[in-house]
Amino acid sequence: MTKYVTEAIGTLLLTFTVGLTSDPVAIGTVLIALIYVCIHKSDAHFNPAVSIAAWARGKLSPGELAGYLTGQFSGGILAAGLCWWITDVTFYSAPDPSATTLQFISIELIFSLLLILTYIMLIYPAKRRKNPVYGVIIGIVFAGCLLVSQPIAGTGLNPAITTSFALFDYMNFGDAYQFLPVYILAPFISGLLASVLHRILLSEK
Amino acid sequence: MTKYVTEAIGTLLLTFTVGLTSDPVAIGTVLIALIYVCIHKSDAHFNPAVSIAAWARGKLSPGELAGYLTGQFSGGILAAGLCWWITDVTFYSAPDPSATTLQFISIELIFSLLLILTYIMLIYPAKRRKNPVYGVIIGIVFAGCLLVSQPIAGTGLNPAITTSFALFDYMNFGDAYQFLPVYILAPFISGLLASVLHRILLSEK
Amino acid sequence: MTKYVTEAIGTLLLTFTVGLTSDPVAIGTVLIALIYVCIHKSDAHFNPAVSIAAWARGKLSPGELAGYLTGQFSGGILAAGLCWWITDVTFYSAPDPSATTLQFISIELIFSLLLILTYIMLIYPAKRRKNPVYGVIIGIVFAGCLLVSQPIAGTGLNPAITTSFALFDYMNFGDAYQFLPVYILAPFISGLLASVLHRILLSEK
Amino acid sequence: MTKYVTEAIGTLLLTFTVGLTSDPVAIGTVLIALIYVCIHKSDAHFNPAVSIAAWARGKLSPGELAGYLTGQFSGGILAAGLCWWITDVTFYSAPDPSATTLQFISIELIFSLLLILTYIMLIYPAKRRKNPVYGVIIGIVFAGCLLVSQPIAGTGLNPAITTSFALFDYMNFGDAYQFLPVYILAPFISGLLASVLHRILLSEK
Repeated sequence: MTKYVTEAIGTLLLTFTVGLTSDPVAIGTVLIALIYVCIHKSDAHFNPAVSIAAWARGKLSPGELAGYLTGQFSGGILAAGLCWWITDVTFYSAPDPSATTLQFISIELIFSLLLILTYIMLIYPAKRRKNPVYGVIIGIVFAGCLLVSQPIAGTGLNPAITTSFALFDYMNFGDAYQFLPVYILAPFISGLLASVLHRILLSEK
Repeated sequence: MTKYVTEAIGTLLLTFTVGLTSDPVAIGTVLIALIYVCIHKSDAHFNPAVSIAAWARGKLSPGELAGYLTGQFSGGILAAGLCWWITDVTFYSAPDPSATTLQFISIELIFSLLLILTYIMLIYPAKRRKNPVYGVIIGIVFAGCLLVSQPIAGTGLNPAITTSFALFDYMNFGDAYQFLPVYILAPFISGLLASVLHRILLSEK
Repeated sequence: MTKYVTEAIGTLLLTFTVGLTSDPVAIGTVLIALIYVCIHKSDAHFNPAVSIAAWARGKLSPGELAGYLTGQFSGGILAAGLCWWITDVTFYSAPDPSATTLQFISIELIFSLLLILTYIMLIYPAKRRKNPVYGVIIGIVFAGCLLVSQPIAGTGLNPAITTSFALFDYMNFGDAYQFLPVYILAPFISGLLASVLHRILLSEK
Repeated sequence: MTKYVTEAIGTLLLTFTVGLTSDPVAIGTVLIALIYVCIHKSDAHFNPAVSIAAWARGKLSPGELAGYLTGQFSGGILAAGLCWWITDVTFYSAPDPSATTLQFISIELIFSLLLILTYIMLIYPAKRRKNPVYGVIIGIVFAGCLLVSQPIAGTGLNPAITTSFALFDYMNFGDAYQFLPVYILAPFISGLLASVLHRILLSEK
């Protein structure tokens, strides 16, 4: 149970940060803090697409996956609500108006894949976490993927964050939901692909 | 005694840096240097809220806490005075005029919590400091927390720094003291909360 | 065979990133991710000039060198084509109009040398890769070399990337090929020089 | 002999970088590369003030100090000449016109001290270099110290760099020499002070 609460709190703080700033460096840095703070209690995913990949690789049971996802979406929704309460405006991710659908989808797919692959290469198997910089690397890579993808595809790569903000924007009479299919499906597809690549990349040479 | 002088000198240099620049990356980097330089003589807090959290976790005795706080506030005040002497102007932290009190308080609370938690997770127990990147992580996280909080809540997260600058601004006929209750109380409350979370997060799974 | 495919996929992702952004920090960060993700299957070069240096030091056989180069150019060309398909424009590296030929050549030579030397010092011999930050250092140094060289000499330092974009620009009736001799020869010459320096720098003191 | 040549080449590349860019992040990153590339042949100072501190702590003999300084100034002068040849202009460091002499001197003293102290804390005794991030920390701290000091005191903290550029500017009929006393004396004084602090900070608790 503690691990699901940990995922909820971590995702809450990460989502809250995204609600306050769009600076990828700040967001990645907060992820670094959360990973080192939470790793003793959960696997520090804070991202449903990472949990899907971990489940597909047999690192989480179906029940644990359900717990992780529940925690992550609960935390995200709490944070998005908190942001609305505090700032009185709602916020949602959207691709740049000049971006085509093809650009939006392909960029969301490719950089989700790179992020998730980095994540599961560095936290599974667990002995890898003895590498003292694993959390720094993951945070830097999240920042880097956002630096590339954000100007074209908006702040995505994490369905818990995008869904939570879109939910409150919808309640506030917005139309953010139109981009959700890409923000949800692309990371999930990349998560499944990452689990396949993880198996190949760690097999015997 | 050496440890209190070390805290004073470290806080002096950190506060002096804040007096010269508001760039979070520069400030976080100076903290990285100070941690590695001072860790053999003190626990390299340079922040009263971190010391409160360490005391609440039993890492500092009440007497040591008094020494750490005395050192930190002495160093901060010396630095703020030095800045006034050198630049001939006084400086103080303040939230952005557009920020509501609710935003100011909640952001100061949440990012102090994240900073302090990162701090005490990485320097206690002491064997964690064998992780060679602990100081880099703490400095990066200080920079990241300021990147998020500074545009809304001003340069806070450290009562020794905010109090010292406000003191000299008050002597220079300013009204900086009005924001001090938040800049002092929020980090202290977060420090106590962090000590509770530290106990939970490091307990047996 | 897997290693050549790995080089192709890594170079594809790196080149794709360069096609989307010219931010050296973003590009260096993606390289960090790719190194940690791919190192178990190839030596994570993603750069023909690094492979030339590794071959000159006896770390790759002539056949392996051919495989690495084939993989890298295939990946680069695929990525550049993908960028053209997605964005409908072609892109190529060029020095700043104010830069003289002497500046262009000398900067491309010197920063290729620094990048390649850092690369081979940190990944050969293989036991160095037990240093957990080797990939972070290489990525940071790639970013740093681009930060210095890019405003004068354009985005170079990697012949697979520059050649691939120039190829599609030429197919799109551009004249990018005129800068290719420097973008290709300078890194290769620096690679050979780096292999000599690597031997000296790691010899007995 | 090799170590003096290594110091010359490293200082040459560092000075050349400063001649091309004033971006502290780029400069600090090049220092990271140079430290890891050169550490097997010299102690990777590339800065006369660091060598003075190392000599005062007994880490270099007087003869070695002379060799280090000769190498560093030779490399710096070669780089500054190379920059003049390539760009056809001369360049020199100067404090901001609004900065007072007091600000200039005190900032140059304090941030030289912090840089040199970080340097010698992390590279002496030699077993500390087993900490895999020592070079990253030193480079980050150089960048951070420049981020704070540069807008007020200009690009200083290293007498080999400032002297070399001033020399060629003087030959090009400039008056850069007027700031040299501070750029040379402040780091040397800080170097001696750092050697005293190093002894205290590493003594038994």
